[in-house]
Amino acid sequence: MTEQRTLEPEKLTKGLATVSKPVKRLDAEDKVKGKPLFADDYDRPGILYAKQLYSKFPHAKIINIDITEAQDSPGVKGVITRDDIPGKHTYGNVIEDQRALADVKVRFLGDVVCVVAAKTKRQADAAVEKVKVEYEELPAVFDPREALKEGAPLLYEERKTNAQIPQKVRHGNVEKGFKESDLIIKKKFTTPFLEHSYIEPESAIAFIDQQGTIRIKGSFQNPFTAREVIAGFLSMGLDKIRVQKTVLGGTFGGKDELMSAIGCRLALLSLKTGCPVKTTYSRENSFLESHKRNPFYMDYKVGVTKDGILKAVESDIVVDSGVYCSMSPYIALRGIVQGAGPYRVENVCSDAVSVYTNNPYTGAMRGFGSPQTNVAIESIMDIIAQKLDIDPVKLRLKNALKKGDVAPTGQKINHEVGLTEALQKTAKKIGWKKKRKKYSKKQTGDYRKGVGIACCMRGISLGAEGVDAAAASVSVQSDGRVIVTTGITDHGQGSQTVMAQIAADILGISIDRITYLEPDTSLIPDSGPTVASRSTFMGGNATKDAALKVKKRMIKIVAELLESPEEYVLVSGGRFYDRKSPDLEISFDEAVKVCNNKAVPLFEYGWYSMPAIDWDEEKGVGEPYFTYVYSVNAAEVTVDTATGKVKVDNFVSAHDMGRAINPMQCYGQMFGGAAMGIGLALYEEVEVVEGVMKDRNFDTYTLPTACDVPDFQGIIVERPDPEGPFGAKSLGEPATEVVAPAVLNAVAQAIGRRIYDLPASLERVLLGKKLSKYKKKKKG
Amino acid sequence: MTEQRTLEPEKLTKGLATVSKPVKRLDAEDKVKGKPLFADDYDRPGILYAKQLYSKFPHAKIINIDITEAQDSPGVKGVITRDDIPGKHTYGNVIEDQRALADVKVRFLGDVVCVVAAKTKRQADAAVEKVKVEYEELPAVFDPREALKEGAPLLYEERKTNAQIPQKVRHGNVEKGFKESDLIIKKKFTTPFLEHSYIEPESAIAFIDQQGTIRIKGSFQNPFTAREVIAGFLSMGLDKIRVQKTVLGGTFGGKDELMSAIGCRLALLSLKTGCPVKTTYSRENSFLESHKRNPFYMDYKVGVTKDGILKAVESDIVVDSGVYCSMSPYIALRGIVQGAGPYRVENVCSDAVSVYTNNPYTGAMRGFGSPQTNVAIESIMDIIAQKLDIDPVKLRLKNALKKGDVAPTGQKINHEVGLTEALQKTAKKIGWKKKRKKYSKKQTGDYRKGVGIACCMRGISLGAEGVDAAAASVSVQSDGRVIVTTGITDHGQGSQTVMAQIAADILGISIDRITYLEPDTSLIPDSGPTVASRSTFMGGNATKDAALKVKKRMIKIVAELLESPEEYVLVSGGRFYDRKSPDLEISFDEAVKVCNNKAVPLFEYGWYSMPAIDWDEEKGVGEPYFTYVYSVNAAEVTVDTATGKVKVDNFVSAHDMGRAINPMQCYGQMFGGAAMGIGLALYEEVEVVEGVMKDRNFDTYTLPTACDVPDFQGIIVERPDPEGPFGAKSLGEPATEVVAPAVLNAVAQAIGRRIYDLPASLERVLLGKKLSKYKKKKKG
Repeated sequence: MTEQRTLEPEKLTKGLATVSKPVKRLDAEDKVKGKPLFADDYDRPGILYAKQLYSKFPHAKIINIDITEAQDSPGVKGVITRDDIPGKHTYGNVIEDQRALADVKVRFLGDVVCVVAAKTKRQADAAVEKVKVEYEELPAVFDPREALKEGAPLLYEERKTNAQIPQKVRHGNVEKGFKESDLIIKKKFTTPFLEHSYIEPESAIAFIDQQGTIRIKGSFQNPFTAREVIAGFLSMGLDKIRVQKTVLGGTFGGKDELMSAIGCRLALLSLKTGCPVKTTYSRENSFLESHKRNPFYMDYKVGVTKDGILKAVESDIVVDSGVYCSMSPYIALRGIVQGAGPYRVENVCSDAVSVYTNNPYTGAMRGFGSPQTNVAIESIMDIIAQKLDIDPVKLRLKNALKKGDVAPTGQKINHEVGLTEALQKTAKKIGWKKKRKKYSKKQTGDYRKGVGIACCMRGISLGAEGVDAAAASVSVQSDGRVIVTTGITDHGQGSQTVMAQIAADILGISIDRITYLEPDTSLIPDSGPTVASRSTFMGGNATKDAALKVKKRMIKIVAELLESPEEYVLVSGGRFYDRKSPDLEISFDEAVKVCNNKAVPLFEYGWYSMPAIDWDEEKGVGEPYFTYVYSVNAAEVTVDTATGKVKVDNFVSAHDMGRAINPMQCYGQMFGGAAMGIGLALYEEVEVVEGVMKDRNFDTYTLPTACDVPDFQGIIVERPDPEGPFGAKSLGEPATEVVAPAVLNAVAQAIGRRIYDLPASLERVLLGKKLSKYKKKKKG
Repeated sequence: MTEQRTLEPEKLTKGLATVSKPVKRLDAEDKVKGKPLFADDYDRPGILYAKQLYSKFPHAKIINIDITEAQDSPGVKGVITRDDIPGKHTYGNVIEDQRALADVKVRFLGDVVCVVAAKTKRQADAAVEKVKVEYEELPAVFDPREALKEGAPLLYEERKTNAQIPQKVRHGNVEKGFKESDLIIKKKFTTPFLEHSYIEPESAIAFIDQQGTIRIKGSFQNPFTAREVIAGFLSMGLDKIRVQKTVLGGTFGGKDELMSAIGCRLALLSLKTGCPVKTTYSRENSFLESHKRNPFYMDYKVGVTKDGILKAVESDIVVDSGVYCSMSPYIALRGIVQGAGPYRVENVCSDAVSVYTNNPYTGAMRGFGSPQTNVAIESIMDIIAQKLDIDPVKLRLKNALKKGDVAPTGQKINHEVGLTEALQKTAKKIGWKKKRKKYSKKQTGDYRKGVGIACCMRGISLGAEGVDAAAASVSVQSDGRVIVTTGITDHGQGSQTVMAQIAADILGISIDRITYLEPDTSLIPDSGPTVASRSTFMGGNATKDAALKVKKRMIKIVAELLESPEEYVLVSGGRFYDRKSPDLEISFDEAVKVCNNKAVPLFEYGWYSMPAIDWDEEKGVGEPYFTYVYSVNAAEVTVDTATGKVKVDNFVSAHDMGRAINPMQCYGQMFGGAAMGIGLALYEEVEVVEGVMKDRNFDTYTLPTACDVPDFQGIIVERPDPEGPFGAKSLGEPATEVVAPAVLNAVAQAIGRRIYDLPASLERVLLGKKLSKYKKKKKG
C-alpha cells in the first residue's frame, strides 16, 4: 500500500497536534493481542441459551403453534411465541412491518416462529425441533417486477400493494435534454443480493440488573434503535432498557434490524425465566435471517452531446426489498439522488420503487443504494466515451461538478469540490494515459489487460433520511485524564480514535490521556444510528462541542491566574499559555487542580445537529444532503480469457473527504472499501431461488480473500468543510461506492465486452451470458 | 409511629407536586421482594476468591514475608504482598498513612500483610494460613492520652509525635466569661469505640473489562474516593479505573477507607491473575479491620449566670484515632464546632486533638464527632438546670439561637432558625411539663421513670472539611421518560428517590416516569464522597440545576408552539401550559417529540458547589459551615433498678431540616437515627484491650433490637433555606446526633445519678461505677 495526500504535510498539520496525524488506534494493541471481548465471550452464572425455530415456507399462515413437547424437554426454562409478546408485534424504521416473532403469517424462510431457552445449547437445539407448527401455505412472489403487477400475491394484504414508498428526482426537462443530445444510450443493469459478511455473527446476552433494568449486551450496530424496538416489544419505558454494544466484528449496516429482533427475544426470555439468556448465531442462521444488500433492476437512458456534455439522465429502478421494508425506500432515494453521477446534468428524471417479495429482506449495506446505481451511470459514461471516442477521464473531467455548479438534483453546489483534482491525481497514479492507450490496442493471448476509472458523489450523513443529531460527553478527571464518549458506536471503523483525537486536539493534550468510554443507551443521550458514514461528522462535531465548552471554562480560570486576556490564552502540548507572552504558562494538570479547588465543573455534554436540508420527497426536488464527498477509483485488471478469472492488479482510491482526521484510518477505510467493492464487482451473490437461499456459508458465497486484493494506493484530497469537525466530512461508505464500476470498466476494456449483470463472475466474463437468476426466473 | 409537620399541608405543598410528598421509595418494592443484588450476589465465570492475612501483633516490624508455600497451595492463582504494589503504598483523606498492604510495619491487628486469590474460598482460607511472616515486635500504646506523652511509642517515627492536626474554636474571652458566671460546672465524659454495624459486610468484585478498564463493583460508600486510592495504588489514570457501588446494606460512614483497601487488593489480584476476584468479609473480619467511631475523652468547663445565661464554654478533647488518621481531625473539629450547643455563648475556647494509638482506627460515623460532644454539653445543661433549679426546657429556650444571634464560633446566624419551635413542640409532644414534674418526685420501687431533652445544631455539608461540589445528569428520553443520575450514592437513605422527586417536580411530570441510574465513577463526574448528610443538599441542587436547564430549553420550544411568552409557560401534571391562558397547552410527551424533531437536546449536566464559608483553622475563628440544621430530641425512660436495664418508652425527634423533600423518608431517618443513638447511649461498645478487640460479632456487641426501640414520634420543622433545593438542608446525621444526651438526661432523672462514661450499661446504671476500660487501663 502506498499513500498520498494532496496537501503538503506542513499545511495539513498547521496548528494541529493530534488531528490529521496517523495516530495509532486506541484499540489496536488490545485487538492484536486478542484481548477484547466480543459478544459471544460474555457469560453469566445461570445462563440459558436461546435457539430459534424458522418458518418452513416462504409464505404461509400460521394456524397453530404447539410448544407443549418443547416446554417439557430436558433443560428447557422458557419458550416464547407470538402469544407471549407483551407489547407491539411490529417494528421498522420506515414501515412497521417487521416481527421479532411471526404472528399471523410467515413471509420468508428466515421468519422466526418460536424461541426456546435451555440450560445448554444442545438442549435448546433439541427442544426447538419439538415445536409443532401448523401452516397454511400461501402463494408467494419472488421477483419484485412481478410483485408490482396486478394480482400478484400480497405480502401485506392491508397495504393493497407490494410497492413501498416510491422515490423520485426531478430536475430540468429530460425530454428537452434528450432532444438536445447527439447520442442517447439506453441500458439495463442488475445487481444481486449481497451478504454483509461480517466475520462475527450475531450474538447477544440479556439479563435483569440490580435496578430491574433489562440489560442487553451484544453485537448491536445501533443500540438506540434496538432499545426503542425492545421497549415497544416489551411495552416498557426506554429508561428501563439498557442496550450496550460489545466490541463489533464488523457490521457494514447489517447488525441492525435483526439484532433488534434478537434483543426482543432474549429480553423477553430473560423476563420470563429470570435468568440471563444468550444466543450466538451460526453462520448459516446469520445468512438465513439477516438482511441483504438490495438487488437493483435498473433501466437507464442517458443523453449527451457529441462533445460529451451530459444533457439528460433518465432512470427507472425497481428495488427488491424482500419481506420487510427496512430502509429500502431511502436506499432507493440515495440510489437515484447519487445515480446521475457527480456531474452537471441539467435534466434528470429518476424513479425508484422498493417492492415486497417473499425473498430475504434487504436494507442498509455500506453504500446504501449508491454502489448499485454507480455501476449503471459509470458504465454508461464509459460506453459514451467509447462511442464518442473521448478518453473516459476527459469525459468525466468535462462534466465534473465544480463549486458553483448545479448538481443533478438541482442543488447549487456552494462548497469546495475536490473532484477534478481527485480525477487528475487518480489518473496519474494509475498511469492512465499510457495504460489506457496500451490496452486499447488489440490484445491477444490468454491474459488481457484493462484499466478503468469511475467517480461518484456521496451525500453527507442522514440528510433527507431523517432527523440527524448526536451527543457526546467530555469529562476531565482530577488527575488530568479525560473520559470521552459519544452516542456513536465503533464498529471497527476506528471512530473512538477519531473522537479521542478531536477531544485531545481541542484540549491541547496528548491522546494517551484520553479514554473513550464505550457507550450504552442509558449512559449517553440518543445519538441516532451509526449509519450513513455519519460517525466522524456528527460524533466528531458533538465531541468538539463538548471539548470546546470545557476548554472555554478552563481558559477563563487560567486567564485569571495568568492575568492574561482570555482571548490570548491557548492550550497545546499539555500546557496553557499566553500567546503574547508564551512564558506565562501553566500545565494542563495544574489548571485542572485549580479548577477543581474552585469547584469549576470540567465536564460537558456536546451536541450537534446537521445543517438544514430541504428535500421535497413528493416532488423529488431540493437539497437532499447539505454537502457531499467526492470519490474517484481506478482499477487495472488482467483477465484470464481461458477461465474468465479477473485479477485486479492495481487499485487507486481517491476521496475529497474534507479533512482526514486520521490518515492511517482513512487508508484503512479505502482499503477495506476497495476489497468490498471488488467483491460486488467480481465475486459476491447470494443466490435465492423461489425464496430459498442457495448460498448460506462462505463455502459457496465467495468473498475476495487476501489473494484477490490488489496493490492498493490511497489518495487523500482535502477540501475542509466549514461545518465539519476540523473540516472533516466522511469516508466509510464513499470508500466502497464506486469501486465496482472502476473494475467493470477495466474488465470491459480488457475483454472488449461489457457486463451488465453483477457480479462479473467467471461464467459471465467467459461466456458473456446474462446469468442473472432473476432474469431467468422472469423468462421461466 | 406518629408524625407531625409544623407547617400546614396546604402551605407546605403549594405549587409542589412531588416534592414535600411522602412518595414511595423507588427501590422499595424491589427491596421488599428481595430482588436487589448486593455485592456478594455478583458472580462471574472464572471467579477467584480473595482472603487476607492479618497482622499477629498490634505493633511490629515486618522482617520477611514468605509466600512460597501459599503460592503452591491447591487452587491458588495469585498472592500479593507489599512487593507487588505498582504505585503508591499509602493513602488517606487527611494524612496519607493508610496501607492496603502493610509494608515496613504493622500497627494494629487489622493490618493486612498478604492476600491470596484462589479458585474456592476454602482454598484461599487454607493457602493464606501457609504464608510465613517474620515480625520484630515493637512497643505499643493504646491510650491516646498516654500516646501524647513524651517518650510514648511512635506509630509514625517520621512524624515525631502521635498527635495529628490539632483543632480549635476561639470566640470571645473565656476567662472574662467565667468571671461573669455565677455557676461553673466542670465535668469529664468519655465515649467508647463503636461499630457501624451495617448489616451487609464489606464485599466487592474486580475484573478487567473489554476496554482494559479495571472494573470494581462492591459495597462502596464513596466510589470516587476509592477510585482515586486504587488509581494511586496501581499507578494508573482515573479513567482506567471504574468503581461502581452495588446496592448497599448500610454504611453510616463505614464503607470508606476499608473498601478502598479492598478495592486496591482485588484490582491488583485481578491484574495479576487476569481473572475476576471477589471477597466478602465475615462479620469477624469486618469488626477487626473496619474503622470505628472515635472514642472521645472530654474535659468540659461551662460558666452560667444565676439566671441561666451561658457565659463561657471551655473544652479540651482528646480523640483516639487508632492507627490511621482517616477523618479524625475533622471529626474533632466538628465535635468542637458543635460542642458548645446551639446556644448564644459569647465566650468559647475549645481544643481537640486526635491521636494515633495501636488501637483499631477510627473515622467517620453518622454524626461525625457531634454525638460525642453533644453528650457532654447537653448533660452539663441538665446539671446547670438542676443546680439553678430551672426547667431544662426553659434553660435551653433562654439560650437557644435565633436569627440574628451569634453562634458559639462567632458566626452570625443570618438564616431562619426553627430551634425554639422545635424545643416547644418536642416538649409538648413528649408531655414534658407533666412528666418532668411527676418524675421529679421521689420514686420508689424497682421501676423508676425519667424524661430528658437535648438539642443541637449541625453544620451543613462539608463546610470547613473540604471543597464541596456535586454533579447530576438529567436526560429526557424520546418516549418522555427521564434518566436521572448524580454522583451521590444511595446507601439505603433513599437519596435516589429524593433526586427523582426533585427532577419530577421541576419537569412537571410524575415520579414513575423517572429512572434513577445508579452511578459509577466513569458515568458521572466526581461529586465527592457521600458523607456529611450532603446528599439531598448537594445532589439535590445539582439535579435541580440539570432539570432546570432541560426545562428551560423545552419551555423555549413550547412557547414558540403556543405563541406564548416564555415567562408565561409553566409545566405540571405532565403538560406545559400558558398560565395566562391555561387552555393553551401541550403534553410533556408531545413537547418531547417536537423537541426531538427539532434536534433540541433534552439532556444536561447539573452542577452545584457549596456557598463560600470562611474558617481559619489556625485561629479557630470564622464560619465553618454556611448554615445549620437544628435538632431537638426528647426521651422518656423506665429504669429497672434491680437490673440496671433502661427501657426507652417514648421518643420524640424534631428537626428544622429546611424542607422535607420526602416526609416519609425523613421520619425513616429520624427513626433509624433514634435507634442508633439509643445504641450509643445504652448498649454499644467495642471493647479493645491492649489493641485486642474483645467484641467481634453481634453476640457480645449489643445493638438495640426491635424490642429496644420505643414508640417514636417525629416532628418536621420547616424553615426553607434559600440555598437548598426547594429549601432543603439535611437530616441523615442530625437524626442521631442528639439522641444519646436526651436518653441520658432521662436516665439521670430516673435514677438521680448521672452517667459520664458511655454506654449507660446495666453495670453503670446499676452500680454507678465508672467502668470505662480506658480509665481502668490508665490506672493499671
